[in-house]
Amino acid sequence: LTKNNRKKFRKLFLSLHGYEQSQLFENFSLAQRKIIYSYLTPEELANVFDDTEEDPVEAGKYLDEMPPAYVARLLREMYMDNVVDILADMRPLKRRKYLNLMQTGEAAQVRNLIHYEDESAGSLMTTEFIAVKEDLSVGSAMHQVKREAQEAELITYIYVIDEAGVLVGVLSVRDLITHPDDEAIKDIMITRVLAVDVNEDQEAIAEQVRDYNFVAIPVVDEAEKIVGIITVDDIIDVIDEESAEDYSHLAGVDTQTISHNPFQTAFKRLPWLITLLFLGMLTATLINHFDTLLSQMSVLAVFISLITGTAGNAGTQSLAVAVRRLAMNSHLKITRLLLNEVATGIIIGVVTGVCVWLMVGFWKQDLVLGGIVGAAMASAIFVANLAGSIIPIGMEKLGVDPAVASGPFISTLSDLTSVLIYFNIAQYFLQMYGH
Amino acid sequence: LTKNNRKKFRKLFLSLHGYEQSQLFENFSLAQRKIIYSYLTPEELANVFDDTEEDPVEAGKYLDEMPPAYVARLLREMYMDNVVDILADMRPLKRRKYLNLMQTGEAAQVRNLIHYEDESAGSLMTTEFIAVKEDLSVGSAMHQVKREAQEAELITYIYVIDEAGVLVGVLSVRDLITHPDDEAIKDIMITRVLAVDVNEDQEAIAEQVRDYNFVAIPVVDEAEKIVGIITVDDIIDVIDEESAEDYSHLAGVDTQTISHNPFQTAFKRLPWLITLLFLGMLTATLINHFDTLLSQMSVLAVFISLITGTAGNAGTQSLAVAVRRLAMNSHLKITRLLLNEVATGIIIGVVTGVCVWLMVGFWKQDLVLGGIVGAAMASAIFVANLAGSIIPIGMEKLGVDPAVASGPFISTLSDLTSVLIYFNIAQYFLQMYGH
Repeated sequence: LTKNNRKKFRKLFLSLHGYEQSQLFENFSLAQRKIIYSYLTPEELANVFDDTEEDPVEAGKYLDEMPPAYVARLLREMYMDNVVDILADMRPLKRRKYLNLMQTGEAAQVRNLIHYEDESAGSLMTTEFIAVKEDLSVGSAMHQVKREAQEAELITYIYVIDEAGVLVGVLSVRDLITHPDDEAIKDIMITRVLAVDVNEDQEAIAEQVRDYNFVAIPVVDEAEKIVGIITVDDIIDVIDEESAEDYSHLAGVDTQTISHNPFQTAFKRLPWLITLLFLGMLTATLINHFDTLLSQMSVLAVFISLITGTAGNAGTQSLAVAVRRLAMNSHLKITRLLLNEVATGIIIGVVTGVCVWLMVGFWKQDLVLGGIVGAAMASAIFVANLAGSIIPIGMEKLGVDPAVASGPFISTLSDLTSVLIYFNIAQYFLQMYGH
Repeated sequence: LTKNNRKKFRKLFLSLHGYEQSQLFENFSLAQRKIIYSYLTPEELANVFDDTEEDPVEAGKYLDEMPPAYVARLLREMYMDNVVDILADMRPLKRRKYLNLMQTGEAAQVRNLIHYEDESAGSLMTTEFIAVKEDLSVGSAMHQVKREAQEAELITYIYVIDEAGVLVGVLSVRDLITHPDDEAIKDIMITRVLAVDVNEDQEAIAEQVRDYNFVAIPVVDEAEKIVGIITVDDIIDVIDEESAEDYSHLAGVDTQTISHNPFQTAFKRLPWLITLLFLGMLTATLINHFDTLLSQMSVLAVFISLITGTAGNAGTQSLAVAVRRLAMNSHLKITRLLLNEVATGIIIGVVTGVCVWLMVGFWKQDLVLGGIVGAAMASAIFVANLAGSIIPIGMEKLGVDPAVASGPFISTLSDLTSVLIYFNIAQYFLQMYGH
């Protein structure tokens, strides 16, 4: 690129896959990018932009560096869904500028697509699909496929529509190839087509594509007319995004946006930490409430962190299980899950409690103290374990995403209940045995 | 099904997608399944088995219920990768029985595939792909595709091989359709094919398919000969599996295998809890070590759980960020990540520490006590935050999956360091100010 060798650069660069080209492109300087714009045709650069994983905002900035005529052709060549992604993140004024550069028909399509809600089928779909009329023969459908193949994002499925544009069937390109030219499309198509509504949420769509092993799924409007398709590569991005979200929630931190500025990083994590700090202060006030007990028997302080820590761990485990099961299974029997957790909590609590009773009993040569710690441990684990299930289930019932209940939240909350249980049990035992 | 109405059942059942058929099938009783085997041809049932999400062990049990001739045809019709999944989980004796039912060629292929390591390309791939010789014309290649289309799992990509079977190129069915019959395959194929080695790990493969937006990726042996393809539907399963694994690790519990027996559930969670319990006992011993300090100033006990809890939360956050960044980016600059975490830890520590200093100072009307708690909080957060990054990075360096470092582990470990920091700071302050 530096040697001004256009031919050599083109040969090397164009032999790469679009994804590799985009990785290179993102590392070029402004001056280098300007050279690229003169070396590559807009058609070739469209390929790079279609396969990029760059943030749409960044990609939008590149457009500003190009001559208007170049942008116009670039946008025409790119897949519609990617163009929409870039334009959707622009300021209205700038967006209008680029829409004016596009052909009237395409600009109207983009305007339509931009209005779909984020994370809906409409915002994921592309409009470059192949739809044939139901009264065609295999031969003439094949003819149409040949004509439109270069434009379409995917030709694995050919969708069949009636006069009004309503989706009535689907066939694979495989069917088209293997059936004789004079057969009617109507006779070989599958009439039971699974389609999603333009307003459907991306998580539900991803589930369908995964379960049915589709390579693409058609999107229809209220009138059952096909308006676009969602391809599996976009579904993979959705799956990645959703699982990263769940993971982030579990840790109570956004792990998706990467920032190299420690102030930004810190101020992203602080709100949650400070919120939990207040919950922690409540626990401290509670312990403070028992200060006479503590000053009588300071050995109790030794086991506070053991009990709160272990109960928190058990709560986090049951939380993760509940959140996953709620996410995986929409027909989950809630009572069954809860009953199972109650029983599990009892078993875990009793086993851990007995372990602790023996350990503390032998260590301190005091089976009553061991009993206090063991009983507190068992009860605290039982409560934390149950809270770890009930809280996400309750959130689901209230229509809140249960994944938002984070591990740190459950363990901080369980600190509170554990301390409450611990000191009450201690007080009760001391009255009983007058230690 | 109960009405013995074969025709009606077939019509209804066969209008469903394979995934829906399999969902129904899994809910049938043994008697009902026996009827199914008489109602459906093995070819039709193969479709059900190919789209099932049932555990391979369960699917293997169904085979035992069928007449041998029926099984033989069923296995022949199913995709090779799914047959291998089922047979791989059987006892050797039983497996041999089914292999004997298969055609010699296919049985040999299955035997080969079974030996690939779990989670390797070889265990994911299917052998039903289309490969054409490089010296063919478009027309004769199309002829071959038509012939083999029904057998192949996917015809989106046609792979091109030389005389020795070495993978030399690839083209899409789209290219085949749009190019004239007399053109040579050699002239239209892409020669730079991305392929994976049979022994490559599934996580790396999933990353490639996702980045490059492939619908399938070819698998080659050491001699660069194509031996199979991995299709995107299997890649989605891998992505799901890997993210569920990361999620499970973060909570220190297996969220994937669902069990309805509380004893099983409990005994899956207990090992990790008990291990952490020992670490928690260490913390207790440490607090015990400071018992003179505690009995002098029992108010110190009030803030133990506040400090350990908050530091644990901060540690979990930085752990999640580090694990995700290690997973996402193989060319990560470790020093940069660490420096960023050090700075973030200082900022978070100082902000939280000052909050706590003021809160405790006003509450207890004692700025020295507030200072002790605040300083301990700041240092404990800093250490936990750093540990949350260093531990996964160290594990990655040692070749261990960093996702194994769980949130509960980090927070239990940080309990230990937090307590150590807290009591040392308290001791130091008391010596200074002689409270």
